[in-house]
Amino acid sequence: MPNLTVAFQGERGSFSEEAAYKLLGRHIRLLACENFAATFHSVTDGKASACLVPIENTLAGSVYENFDLLLQNHLHIIGEVNLRIVHNLIALPGTARREIRQVYSHPVALAQCSRFFSRHPAIEKIPFYDTAGAVKMLAGRSRTAGRGAAAIASRIAAEVYGARILATHLEDHRENYTRFFLLSKNARPLDGIRQANKTSIVFSTRNVPGALYKCLSVFAVRDIDLTKMESRPLRGRPWEYFFYLDFVGNLGEARCRKALDHLEEVTNFLRVLGCYQGAKR
Amino acid sequence: MPNLTVAFQGERGSFSEEAAYKLLGRHIRLLACENFAATFHSVTDGKASACLVPIENTLAGSVYENFDLLLQNHLHIIGEVNLRIVHNLIALPGTARREIRQVYSHPVALAQCSRFFSRHPAIEKIPFYDTAGAVKMLAGRSRTAGRGAAAIASRIAAEVYGARILATHLEDHRENYTRFFLLSKNARPLDGIRQANKTSIVFSTRNVPGALYKCLSVFAVRDIDLTKMESRPLRGRPWEYFFYLDFVGNLGEARCRKALDHLEEVTNFLRVLGCYQGAKR
Repeated sequence: MPNLTVAFQGERGSFSEEAAYKLLGRHIRLLACENFAATFHSVTDGKASACLVPIENTLAGSVYENFDLLLQNHLHIIGEVNLRIVHNLIALPGTARREIRQVYSHPVALAQCSRFFSRHPAIEKIPFYDTAGAVKMLAGRSRTAGRGAAAIASRIAAEVYGARILATHLEDHRENYTRFFLLSKNARPLDGIRQANKTSIVFSTRNVPGALYKCLSVFAVRDIDLTKMESRPLRGRPWEYFFYLDFVGNLGEARCRKALDHLEEVTNFLRVLGCYQGAKR
Repeated sequence: MPNLTVAFQGERGSFSEEAAYKLLGRHIRLLACENFAATFHSVTDGKASACLVPIENTLAGSVYENFDLLLQNHLHIIGEVNLRIVHNLIALPGTARREIRQVYSHPVALAQCSRFFSRHPAIEKIPFYDTAGAVKMLAGRSRTAGRGAAAIASRIAAEVYGARILATHLEDHRENYTRFFLLSKNARPLDGIRQANKTSIVFSTRNVPGALYKCLSVFAVRDIDLTKMESRPLRGRPWEYFFYLDFVGNLGEARCRKALDHLEEVTNFLRVLGCYQGAKR
């Protein structure tokens, strides 16, 4: 997809950028945004044609802010990609691994590499606002000032800032994946409607006993598989919730359309967030 | 409950402290802990007889870290309390409201008082690590240095640090409640077993189609009301989840015991987190 402008949160070289290349190839233009709200707004404003945002990580859980932003902004999920999170030790060219005394990274990344720091007690970990931002900061230093310092970030960060990977797979858990959604103003799935095999919705239940059970029954009676369910508070209605649900199926299939018709009968509110090709797991 | 030592996260004067007084009265001893993990550990270590931790807020959503800590630590939920979150403008004695130029508080509290800051554009908001901690910091300053500065915190914080409430109800949304769990090593509910009317459990489903629906059916067929469901990732098993469920009922009732027997048949893992008297809503 050449000339597609894709917005993402964070500095150039982030895991979102790596995920964007995996899903869309190298011929895209990237727009770095300061936070998730700005990333969504860049698409509603027309500054970018799409944005790629993390929605859940297999260790840390859901990115709750992005669930809320999906509801607040009327964008469509048109694609999905899962990225294996590999943490690399990155330093300026000319710095040897044995010289490293400080390592900068986002606190979550530092926490995910606790075994590396236990094995190297002389190395100090220094929290930084962003993984790729830590590499950018090192790249802005002189060679002398940068001596002894490294960052933990994606391999794309090393590439973007002309730095070197000194060690790879610093993460404690190999089963560390982040799932991203590609969002656009246009509902057409990235790989065409025929390839779409997954649907995401959000609904709120009626305040009656067994409400959630009735909602799930519309899928169960049609043998439709649910892959993820998330809940978020309904603001202004204490102890009531929105439910976000992903299921396997294309809205072109009669059983999926009928399930949603049936769901409408038992909910107060229902919105389709997108129908798209699911990530290869 | 005199002489009960109750651990909580944060500085003295926090909303957790206010919730502890609401649930347990004023004759308790308090143990302030640096973070949530330390709060749980103070009970497992025997430093405190119980701890009170926030589990969800009606605007911000679940406190996900505490769901994970419930599973990691083998403590029992023995009580529940809901606290209306009222944000107060607090300053040192002698400071008038019109003199205020800077307001310190936790970023979430500052964000929840956005209308106050729109009405007073000359007042600067300054993020601080803790609401009560901001009042403590002001109390440590001299009167001259403290001139023009205020904090946003609970009314208990004003009381603890000898400060004055200059304005109350700064929050944008009145429907702002936080729900807390009281946790102990002993499973006996705070108000006795007979008064217990709510049960919390955690389970993981078998990896079969309709698994979650089958789990919820054990409650639906017995007309047992669910009040909250939360999911968290199962570490090391990507795209699988733990489900946390709260339902109305006492484990002394046959229908509740049978529901859990039935649930055990369709889950891989099941644990009762507690059976306790639910908060008055």
